[in-house]
Amino acid sequence: MAKLAVIAFGGNALLRSGQKGTYEEQIKNVTETCQSLVALVKQGYNIVIGHGNGPQVGNVMLQHEAGSQVFGLQAMPMDFCVSETQGSIGFLIEQGFRNVFAQEKINRNIVTIVTQVVVDKNDSKFQNPTKPVGPYYTKEKADEYAAKTGSVFKEDPKGNGWRKVVASPQPLRIQNIDIVKKLALDGNIVVTVGGGGIPIIEKENGLIAGVEAVIDKDLASALAAVNIGADEFYILTDVPKVYLNFKKPNEKALDVITVAEAKQYLQEGHFTEGSMAPKVRAAIYFVESGGKECIITEAGQLDNPACGTRIVR
Amino acid sequence: MAKLAVIAFGGNALLRSGQKGTYEEQIKNVTETCQSLVALVKQGYNIVIGHGNGPQVGNVMLQHEAGSQVFGLQAMPMDFCVSETQGSIGFLIEQGFRNVFAQEKINRNIVTIVTQVVVDKNDSKFQNPTKPVGPYYTKEKADEYAAKTGSVFKEDPKGNGWRKVVASPQPLRIQNIDIVKKLALDGNIVVTVGGGGIPIIEKENGLIAGVEAVIDKDLASALAAVNIGADEFYILTDVPKVYLNFKKPNEKALDVITVAEAKQYLQEGHFTEGSMAPKVRAAIYFVESGGKECIITEAGQLDNPACGTRIVR
Repeated sequence: MAKLAVIAFGGNALLRSGQKGTYEEQIKNVTETCQSLVALVKQGYNIVIGHGNGPQVGNVMLQHEAGSQVFGLQAMPMDFCVSETQGSIGFLIEQGFRNVFAQEKINRNIVTIVTQVVVDKNDSKFQNPTKPVGPYYTKEKADEYAAKTGSVFKEDPKGNGWRKVVASPQPLRIQNIDIVKKLALDGNIVVTVGGGGIPIIEKENGLIAGVEAVIDKDLASALAAVNIGADEFYILTDVPKVYLNFKKPNEKALDVITVAEAKQYLQEGHFTEGSMAPKVRAAIYFVESGGKECIITEAGQLDNPACGTRIVR
Repeated sequence: MAKLAVIAFGGNALLRSGQKGTYEEQIKNVTETCQSLVALVKQGYNIVIGHGNGPQVGNVMLQHEAGSQVFGLQAMPMDFCVSETQGSIGFLIEQGFRNVFAQEKINRNIVTIVTQVVVDKNDSKFQNPTKPVGPYYTKEKADEYAAKTGSVFKEDPKGNGWRKVVASPQPLRIQNIDIVKKLALDGNIVVTVGGGGIPIIEKENGLIAGVEAVIDKDLASALAAVNIGADEFYILTDVPKVYLNFKKPNEKALDVITVAEAKQYLQEGHFTEGSMAPKVRAAIYFVESGGKECIITEAGQLDNPACGTRIVR
């Protein structure tokens, strides 16, 4: 039976810093990314993709703010903005894969599921939201929005103004994950948990509601990988491997490490918060929950079956 | 075996004219719509939903334009904007259904598929695009954008300025429609062809590309209904039935009409273009392609199994 893999990559694979972010650039970027991922398709894997949306949802929030200023439109909350990026990024990834498949005469299908992810309304992260998102505001504007929407704003430490901060709660449950699994086992490439998933909370009597939060896409993808019983979990980043003493004279690339070693290196502070540390934590979560191995690498390495840093039991 | 129905409704069911369009209003509207649709769920139907996105994609285009003015962001083309609305409207419909199901203790699932729809790049509609979309511009700005993007702009007959016009080509093929059918036959409510679908064209060698166009959501939903072998096709609008001599002293509500009668009434000019006429045409297409009956009515009538105007062979 074909091996089942979940692949997580960041929204910056498509909307790259240093570029203008034109449609043409995004199409080119997504095609390149899909060209790299096709290495795993050729190795016969069934594949589920969990992607980030950092730059995209940032732009959507700016567009909502600008639409409010220029045209008097309503700016929507975080959950709504994430749902918009699931549509657009899913479309781009589908287009990228369909074109790469056509070029390489590969007969595989791809489908995107708009995906809500349940978080706990009592998650302690909601007490002290720390993740800055969207536009910078003056103190007056931030106070006005805070009063109107209940959102929390904090001053940017670099002095750029005030910015909305949201919590990054733990993903608990992925809606429609059984459908994702079924479609993947049927051979479809399935795109899900875009941007970490649309964050929702459960209220009394089984009612749900969207919530202003950002779910870490590596953690959401790790949860998806565990839920569907994936054999392998790939976390793509912009370096070929995980390193000890990264960018120091004694830098050392890691080939294979155990969960125990990964935990030790984390504790020793080898991995940057907001960058490699959450990826290593997602890897640990996957392997501790029964996954065989998690591979952290860059997309361009995927044609080498021994690529990246492999976190094993 | 459960009957299979496709239900099409407009984006204005969620984003209503006369309202501000706040998040709370949209949640309230979508919950009301789902409460009406649940009548068909209770009658045991398997259901596929095709929704419009007129007001939503209009707002997204305004937000892109405003984001370009205020923050220097790139404004994206129509296909990208449609994909954003598929994510957000799918999310809202899912949330609405999940909450109505929870309240009424109904055990059904719902899933949203981001859906591309193939149109013919040689469709004659592309020669003379007529559907105005997005913001009004000055002639200078319109000329500038036309030169930069290749989009076509036309002067608004009411003197509001210049506006992008796009074609409304015939939907030819719906990506992933087999998956939609399978999921619906498994009992899931499936949301697809949002906004008529993300319009794409096929180029040489099987390559695809998004295209600036708007596909009529009733026609796309009719195609979906034919492709999945739906028994019934519901087109929801803001009146309980189709009328002859609408809003005239001799107005007459229609209960059951044949395709031949529908064609005759169309020819006699009983139905407004841009409103009832395309709905009747979508109904004719569905029944002529093998569907049993198409019902045109308003959402609030669905608890009456004899509701609406029924177009039959």
